[in-house]
Amino acid sequence: MLLVLTKRQKEIISIVSQFEPISGDEIASKLDLSKSTIRSDLSFLSHMDYLDARQKVGYLLGKKNNETETYSEIAKMKVSEVMAVPEVIDESLPLYDAIATMFLANVGSIYIHKNKSLVGVVSRKDMIKSMMGGADISKLPVGIVMTRMPNVVWVTPNTTVVSAAQLIISHQIDSLPVVEVLKEEGKTVYRVVGRFSKTVVSKLFCETFSEN
Amino acid sequence: MLLVLTKRQKEIISIVSQFEPISGDEIASKLDLSKSTIRSDLSFLSHMDYLDARQKVGYLLGKKNNETETYSEIAKMKVSEVMAVPEVIDESLPLYDAIATMFLANVGSIYIHKNKSLVGVVSRKDMIKSMMGGADISKLPVGIVMTRMPNVVWVTPNTTVVSAAQLIISHQIDSLPVVEVLKEEGKTVYRVVGRFSKTVVSKLFCETFSEN
Repeated sequence: MLLVLTKRQKEIISIVSQFEPISGDEIASKLDLSKSTIRSDLSFLSHMDYLDARQKVGYLLGKKNNETETYSEIAKMKVSEVMAVPEVIDESLPLYDAIATMFLANVGSIYIHKNKSLVGVVSRKDMIKSMMGGADISKLPVGIVMTRMPNVVWVTPNTTVVSAAQLIISHQIDSLPVVEVLKEEGKTVYRVVGRFSKTVVSKLFCETFSEN
Repeated sequence: MLLVLTKRQKEIISIVSQFEPISGDEIASKLDLSKSTIRSDLSFLSHMDYLDARQKVGYLLGKKNNETETYSEIAKMKVSEVMAVPEVIDESLPLYDAIATMFLANVGSIYIHKNKSLVGVVSRKDMIKSMMGGADISKLPVGIVMTRMPNVVWVTPNTTVVSAAQLIISHQIDSLPVVEVLKEEGKTVYRVVGRFSKTVVSKLFCETFSEN
């Protein structure tokens, strides 16, 4: 990871981001430290463009700041911050409905629920396999085609983006349902609240590394 | 981008990487500079962990070095460095063969060629659409189902990974054929040499941001 700043240096950046422009004395007083104690931090942060030191104005956030934050923020980022809208249908509906939903919503996987709790996932490959088997897609319930819980790999909104991406790769799947796990009348309910997919990861990759 | 080093600082790192351990005097002499001229660079690079300064040993590469390189290297990385193996079949074959190839090779899209030149791409959605239309997949030629050139979005081995990922997102597709464009007997030939997909991007994302 690229985080090379000390805790105090990060505090200084946080103070400057709230109060810019702010003098070195004011920063020191907010930290309950003397200015001489933080002098080397200030000069280091300015040299590295984390801070922009302007005479007679004070310290402002420097341009370097945004860049490193991007990198370290992605390592800490949660699925809830980037997840897409899930497409969910009831397990009693025919496969046809899952296929139609896939095209209409332009997604790769459809999540299946029963009594508003996740019970399975249907991928494009599942759909193709069923059709090759000669299924009547307007009659076959999607619940028969789907990958069923507990074999579904899912994450919560609080899972980190990096862990979720690793699950996608290690399980060779296109997307993960994002669920909130609740207890209702003594039963565990998996409420689908999002979709985390290779598309989401790819978008994040582009945003992180594109020049613009 | 995170590259904050000056040209001279990068030269110093490059020298250390070749000759470590190496003294400050030796570094200076390789740069045709005096040691006092590069003293502030050496202390900066050591402070930032780009260099590891050891008494009586000299300068070694520091641990910070690898990390920033990772970040800037990804921005410069070419498709050829990460592309996967393409699955290519002839356009005269039936759709069934494309579907079987998709399952056997566990890929999302099949590239179609004619006379060893790319003429189209068949995605999983194309397959599903055809099957919904009631096609006899063992008879229907894949050339009828595919997205045909010039409507296929492709890249070359020399395209940057970031540009390729942006194409995937902007065109809402799962993968891009990687092609070498050649002239053969006055005709343009698109020879498929790789596959660049959201899976490739997601793997790269994991490698970049995972802690391990």
